[in-house]
Amino acid sequence: MNKIFVTGASGFIGSNLCDSLLDIGYDVVGYDNLSSGFDEFLEKQKNNPRFSLIVGDILDTDLLKKSMIGCDFVFHLSANADIRFGLENTNKDIQQNTIGTFNVIEAARVAGIKGVAFSSTGSVYGEPRVFPTPEDAPFPIQTSLYAASKLAGEGLLQAYAEGFGIKAYIFRFVSILGERYTHGHVFDFLKQLKKDPSNLSVLGDGKQRKSYLYVKDCISAMLMAIDKSNEKVNIFNLGCDHFCEVNDSIGWICKHLGVSPKITYTSGNRGWVGDSPFIFLDTSRIRSLGWVPKLTIEDGVAATVRYLSSNTHLLEKR
Amino acid sequence: MNKIFVTGASGFIGSNLCDSLLDIGYDVVGYDNLSSGFDEFLEKQKNNPRFSLIVGDILDTDLLKKSMIGCDFVFHLSANADIRFGLENTNKDIQQNTIGTFNVIEAARVAGIKGVAFSSTGSVYGEPRVFPTPEDAPFPIQTSLYAASKLAGEGLLQAYAEGFGIKAYIFRFVSILGERYTHGHVFDFLKQLKKDPSNLSVLGDGKQRKSYLYVKDCISAMLMAIDKSNEKVNIFNLGCDHFCEVNDSIGWICKHLGVSPKITYTSGNRGWVGDSPFIFLDTSRIRSLGWVPKLTIEDGVAATVRYLSSNTHLLEKR
Repeated sequence: MNKIFVTGASGFIGSNLCDSLLDIGYDVVGYDNLSSGFDEFLEKQKNNPRFSLIVGDILDTDLLKKSMIGCDFVFHLSANADIRFGLENTNKDIQQNTIGTFNVIEAARVAGIKGVAFSSTGSVYGEPRVFPTPEDAPFPIQTSLYAASKLAGEGLLQAYAEGFGIKAYIFRFVSILGERYTHGHVFDFLKQLKKDPSNLSVLGDGKQRKSYLYVKDCISAMLMAIDKSNEKVNIFNLGCDHFCEVNDSIGWICKHLGVSPKITYTSGNRGWVGDSPFIFLDTSRIRSLGWVPKLTIEDGVAATVRYLSSNTHLLEKR
Repeated sequence: MNKIFVTGASGFIGSNLCDSLLDIGYDVVGYDNLSSGFDEFLEKQKNNPRFSLIVGDILDTDLLKKSMIGCDFVFHLSANADIRFGLENTNKDIQQNTIGTFNVIEAARVAGIKGVAFSSTGSVYGEPRVFPTPEDAPFPIQTSLYAASKLAGEGLLQAYAEGFGIKAYIFRFVSILGERYTHGHVFDFLKQLKKDPSNLSVLGDGKQRKSYLYVKDCISAMLMAIDKSNEKVNIFNLGCDHFCEVNDSIGWICKHLGVSPKITYTSGNRGWVGDSPFIFLDTSRIRSLGWVPKLTIEDGVAATVRYLSSNTHLLEKR
């Protein structure tokens, strides 16, 4: 592996990954349509001769194919991340996540690339019956168009691995937190509290149990998996070994901000239709390679609050 | 349920289903692009006032939406069935099976249709570790673009069930045999033996273990499931409670034809890349509703040989 292609390079996880890859010594070609990523996240790499950014869409198959030439590994991180709005625009997840992923894998095949890593989601387990949920949990039933579109991407990559010998790395993430985090409920809470520190509206009953992972721990896990796991198809849950309630993370946020808002809950035990009331992944597979996350969920929330408090302009952008 | 929309209505399973639905007393709107179906399969329904056939493609979203108006249930059977050629045209399965299925489900939603049945495949289990394989087998790894495209369709329908309250029926078929069967290995063998009764070339080592189901048993199972199962998402394996080797079915075919060809095997234990060497589904879920298949695999092969021997023009058409 010398030259690595990263889709979603200007996004939260993608830009952190680019930094890590460049630090290690790889050449990196970033690819992003800047629809939800931020130029500024790659600011410090602007003059790095081992880095280039191509502004393009993964639905532009010609540019994608051309851009991948000469690379030998792909991290496919770009996606529609507006998970909860799948039902309002039913075509978006399938276009951005399923067709987009197909385009990336097909371009990789045409370019003779030998390995593709894909950011999937713990949401593909739907509403699991087993906790913590292992990678070989019972065949799940999808509950959101976002997860369904990611599951479709997983299946495509697996079929390409079988049919064309492309090595597949599939990472099923819990929610990721940390520097450059720009969407999700911690973001929404901070945005609300910045506007009005005395009121906070929470989707669901606040008792949804979620697991989170700090972005640098997520990246170290992916890099370790690619280094140490050499199956035809390598599937890893990435998450912490503990979980919290949404109410816990609200408490940590308020503590760090020094605010005590009046909290209003919408009804029901789900944030939105298809929101899983409990996500907690079994990470023993990635841990068996020697990976250990450095931050707890509370630490990750704190890092996120610190980052967004120092970069409040990001709160205005969504 | 009064008026039922059937995609793939001119195909093998679709046309048999239309006959059954009309016999029961439903109105039926068939939809087919006639790319792999046959006009003649619906010949006897031509003058049936309760039946109409719309010649259209499931990628034509406007026609699809218009055609579905007034129907209250959808059987989505149309698909690219050239399973083994996925690697030669990597775009075909995703277009015909994933995007096509999305279009059908989305049209159903727009038309206010309350239930959709989808023909998936036992191939979504990849190369399972558990036999017979139950519906909640461990989360599988896909081995063909065909199966991956069907898995994607399953996930989409499940997400629509969760998000929009459309009742989902997902049927994971083994290979189906019987009257109007026009693709698959029994078809290929008969075609070869008709041309040259003294030689037969077999993909793989002939020891691949497969399960088959007679088409009328398949249809009775689907109708029973829709009648008796009322979950949000209803998933059923459809197959026999026994399996055979490809060599067994060759023996039955030769016996029925009265031929003794010299058999040549290609190397390897798979018919093609992504072909599963062993498919055998646990059908206790559909059986628990009272369904019992009437024909054994040998009976189904015999019925198929009889049908194709009386309709040899079909052997010329592929």
